[in-house]
Amino acid sequence: MEFTASQIASFIDGKIIGDENALITGVSPIESGEAGHLSFVAQDRFAHHLETSQCSVLIVTETLINKDQYNPTIIAVKDAYLSFQILMNLYQEMQGRKEGVEDGSSIHDTAVIGDRVYIGAFTYVSEKAKIGEGSQIFPQVYIGKGVKIGKNCKIDSGARIYDYCIIGDNCVIHSNTVIGGDGFGFQPTPEGFQKIPQLGNVIIEDNVEIGSNCSIDRATIGSTTIGKGTKIDNLIQIAHNVKIGANNVIAAQAGIAGSTTIGDWNQIGGQVGIVGHIKIGNQVKIQAQSGVNSSVNDKETIYGSPAISYNDYLRSYVHFRNLPELAKRINNLENNSKDHTNE
Amino acid sequence: MEFTASQIASFIDGKIIGDENALITGVSPIESGEAGHLSFVAQDRFAHHLETSQCSVLIVTETLINKDQYNPTIIAVKDAYLSFQILMNLYQEMQGRKEGVEDGSSIHDTAVIGDRVYIGAFTYVSEKAKIGEGSQIFPQVYIGKGVKIGKNCKIDSGARIYDYCIIGDNCVIHSNTVIGGDGFGFQPTPEGFQKIPQLGNVIIEDNVEIGSNCSIDRATIGSTTIGKGTKIDNLIQIAHNVKIGANNVIAAQAGIAGSTTIGDWNQIGGQVGIVGHIKIGNQVKIQAQSGVNSSVNDKETIYGSPAISYNDYLRSYVHFRNLPELAKRINNLENNSKDHTNE
Amino acid sequence: MEFTASQIASFIDGKIIGDENALITGVSPIESGEAGHLSFVAQDRFAHHLETSQCSVLIVTETLINKDQYNPTIIAVKDAYLSFQILMNLYQEMQGRKEGVEDGSSIHDTAVIGDRVYIGAFTYVSEKAKIGEGSQIFPQVYIGKGVKIGKNCKIDSGARIYDYCIIGDNCVIHSNTVIGGDGFGFQPTPEGFQKIPQLGNVIIEDNVEIGSNCSIDRATIGSTTIGKGTKIDNLIQIAHNVKIGANNVIAAQAGIAGSTTIGDWNQIGGQVGIVGHIKIGNQVKIQAQSGVNSSVNDKETIYGSPAISYNDYLRSYVHFRNLPELAKRINNLENNSKDHTNE
Repeated sequence: MEFTASQIASFIDGKIIGDENALITGVSPIESGEAGHLSFVAQDRFAHHLETSQCSVLIVTETLINKDQYNPTIIAVKDAYLSFQILMNLYQEMQGRKEGVEDGSSIHDTAVIGDRVYIGAFTYVSEKAKIGEGSQIFPQVYIGKGVKIGKNCKIDSGARIYDYCIIGDNCVIHSNTVIGGDGFGFQPTPEGFQKIPQLGNVIIEDNVEIGSNCSIDRATIGSTTIGKGTKIDNLIQIAHNVKIGANNVIAAQAGIAGSTTIGDWNQIGGQVGIVGHIKIGNQVKIQAQSGVNSSVNDKETIYGSPAISYNDYLRSYVHFRNLPELAKRINNLENNSKDHTNE
Repeated sequence: MEFTASQIASFIDGKIIGDENALITGVSPIESGEAGHLSFVAQDRFAHHLETSQCSVLIVTETLINKDQYNPTIIAVKDAYLSFQILMNLYQEMQGRKEGVEDGSSIHDTAVIGDRVYIGAFTYVSEKAKIGEGSQIFPQVYIGKGVKIGKNCKIDSGARIYDYCIIGDNCVIHSNTVIGGDGFGFQPTPEGFQKIPQLGNVIIEDNVEIGSNCSIDRATIGSTTIGKGTKIDNLIQIAHNVKIGANNVIAAQAGIAGSTTIGDWNQIGGQVGIVGHIKIGNQVKIQAQSGVNSSVNDKETIYGSPAISYNDYLRSYVHFRNLPELAKRINNLENNSKDHTNE
Repeated sequence: MEFTASQIASFIDGKIIGDENALITGVSPIESGEAGHLSFVAQDRFAHHLETSQCSVLIVTETLINKDQYNPTIIAVKDAYLSFQILMNLYQEMQGRKEGVEDGSSIHDTAVIGDRVYIGAFTYVSEKAKIGEGSQIFPQVYIGKGVKIGKNCKIDSGARIYDYCIIGDNCVIHSNTVIGGDGFGFQPTPEGFQKIPQLGNVIIEDNVEIGSNCSIDRATIGSTTIGKGTKIDNLIQIAHNVKIGANNVIAAQAGIAGSTTIGDWNQIGGQVGIVGHIKIGNQVKIQAQSGVNSSVNDKETIYGSPAISYNDYLRSYVHFRNLPELAKRINNLENNSKDHTNE
């Protein structure tokens, strides 16, 4: 797609300084601008790029402009960051949605497919599955028996959604994520471990996004649930019967063990591990790589393995780094004390 | 499926208190029972649910019953937990197995497919692969050259089993797990790293279950092996030439580096890392997130990174949390000692 | 495939001691040699296997040979390890490359497919994608719009390469790895998190190898890049806008957060976490499970969470293990000091 500077300015109600016919065919980060590309400058510390950028067009917060002419064409706006976001969203929408059922997909007779749905080639839709209006199911997806997918969802290539799982509206599930695999439940016997059937499902509420290569296991009985608006990064493990509330953000490679309950608006860092059967409140921040082994109250910030208060951990860690020195000082004290004793 | 209370009672030899025609269409956890659902009460601390549960039918350990009538229909048994397990297994079996080769699969002429095998659409079976009697290969699976899969296995959608790997009987491999990818072996040269061919395979013995999104690499030469009855959770890394014994349980996101040997009946926690070329004995417990960098004897319990004895780690961690206080006490001692010196 | 000892000797310019017609049908590690198999002995500490190995043929470094006859046929060479590598590479090459487009693949009319390319069944190639000469795309791969793949690449079953990503020559991408999924970018609002469109791509330079089940996210704008010759193990997370240089080795389950820059020739251990927006120099070694939260200079070796100098961490950890003893000694000093005070 191609746009002129004047087309772009009209989308975001900007004022052009320079060539209004300057052509844009792509977008660059400001640090590595390219001819024919668009970028933006919203902060003083990036304002020097106004002079040096190779970009053909820059969207610039108006207060940063102090000359009548620059090498790139400038589009002056109130808030360049915001305007750029609006533009990116517009661009995304222009890419369009896919629609229609491609040859080579396999859809069971009893499946119910809504209006304007896209189903890609090599996607398998099992009996009695329902796919809501406007949802896009990319190629090579597996949808099990009785699965329900809401409206306007996007399920990327290679995602697997097992029997009876339920997904709300406006959800995005990225490639190769597995929803509703068996929970890890085995009973020890003297001869070995016996599988405990995992008969529950996974329920994902509206506006949830789940990254690639995640594993969200089905409940033993009942449901593993992920609340409205929660965003989950890549390579994350959510075990059986976990209950996650609304508007959480969970970073890559975190893992949450079975039956743990998590409230709303929490921030869980990358590679965090949370044991089973505990309760995390609301607005909790868990630093990356922490190991959480007991329940956490609202608004706490924690760190470490096992995790303790963030500030306490950092304070202790300063002394940890200094332990050889502390040990030496104890030695000295002991030697002095012996001297005293020998006196 | 629908069952009446009397049908359920007959499966588990229970005594009905209440309406023997009560209809069941699903199962609930006891904390969130629903009308038309079945649940169970096996422990005193859950006995209050007998009075309040919305479930239509409850299986209850007989010693917990002290009234002639409850709101839900009660099925009294010796051990409600055990009876419930039996029922869940029965239910699982009733779901039935799939059988037959679906249209749209691709099976090489030289592949050998046993009786009553299921092969789903878009599954690819390469030359000379063998699939044993009664095994179910779900849609979109990749099976490489000369792979052997035993009897009554279940290979879920999107699993990849590379050339010459061998899987025993009664194994379950969940979605998107990769068995037999190349081991991570490169030789450094001044110009860059040169790939060392990975010519071995993976051997998985009987009754092994492997979760979703795992990577089990093939050996450089010889075999990476996973012993009888071992259960592996999701997102786990097993590197080339690792040897794992029988009846181990390995929790999600653990990783085991190349050529390490692991005995029998070990419990490896979530997000544990184990370095290469060491030996873990039998009945070892490794706490979640531990980093194991040296061999471990039978029956040890370890924790930390690097991992040490579990009790020692916890004892040291108590003092770690208290380090600012310890440092202050050392300061005080030094000040006192100076006072003495100044005397 | 079958080889005789004399055929093998001719490949590596070796001298036969024993039966030059001895037949080889496979390869064993020296510790578990089998009849009909080939192995090698390159070090003194393995020389006793010359006497006891069940292998039919052994390649042996000539200085380790001190008898005229052994049970296995011996092929004497200058450096048995090197000769064995040469042989393994030869063997690998003999396995051949696949070529041709299999029935059941879906290739868009506008895609450009080079000479001698292999495209497996159930692979989906989107509009305007380009696949270079001699590349092998295995079954069930997804290739998005405008993707460019260079020459002689191998893309394994179930890999997903999203729109506009670029892959150089001689790259290997293993099964179920996702290249170019959306970066994890959301703007908090009082009602919930709003998705920031991820409009960049991923650029992978020549000679890169990426293991199975990895997630390499596309840039928000611009490119996430992986430099020439870098080798990435399994289950690794590379976030949006990360820049990785040449010839790095990154071990399994490591994660690198958004916009971090990594130089050349670094070694990153398993399960390492690196925060966003920092800079790792060149020839840095990061020990397994470390958590890196600030920039790192060239040639440093670091360990711990948060990571500090490797030697400092180990020194502090020795005292950490000894903390209960240190605390006791502080108690004693305090008691003694009180005694003094009471004097």
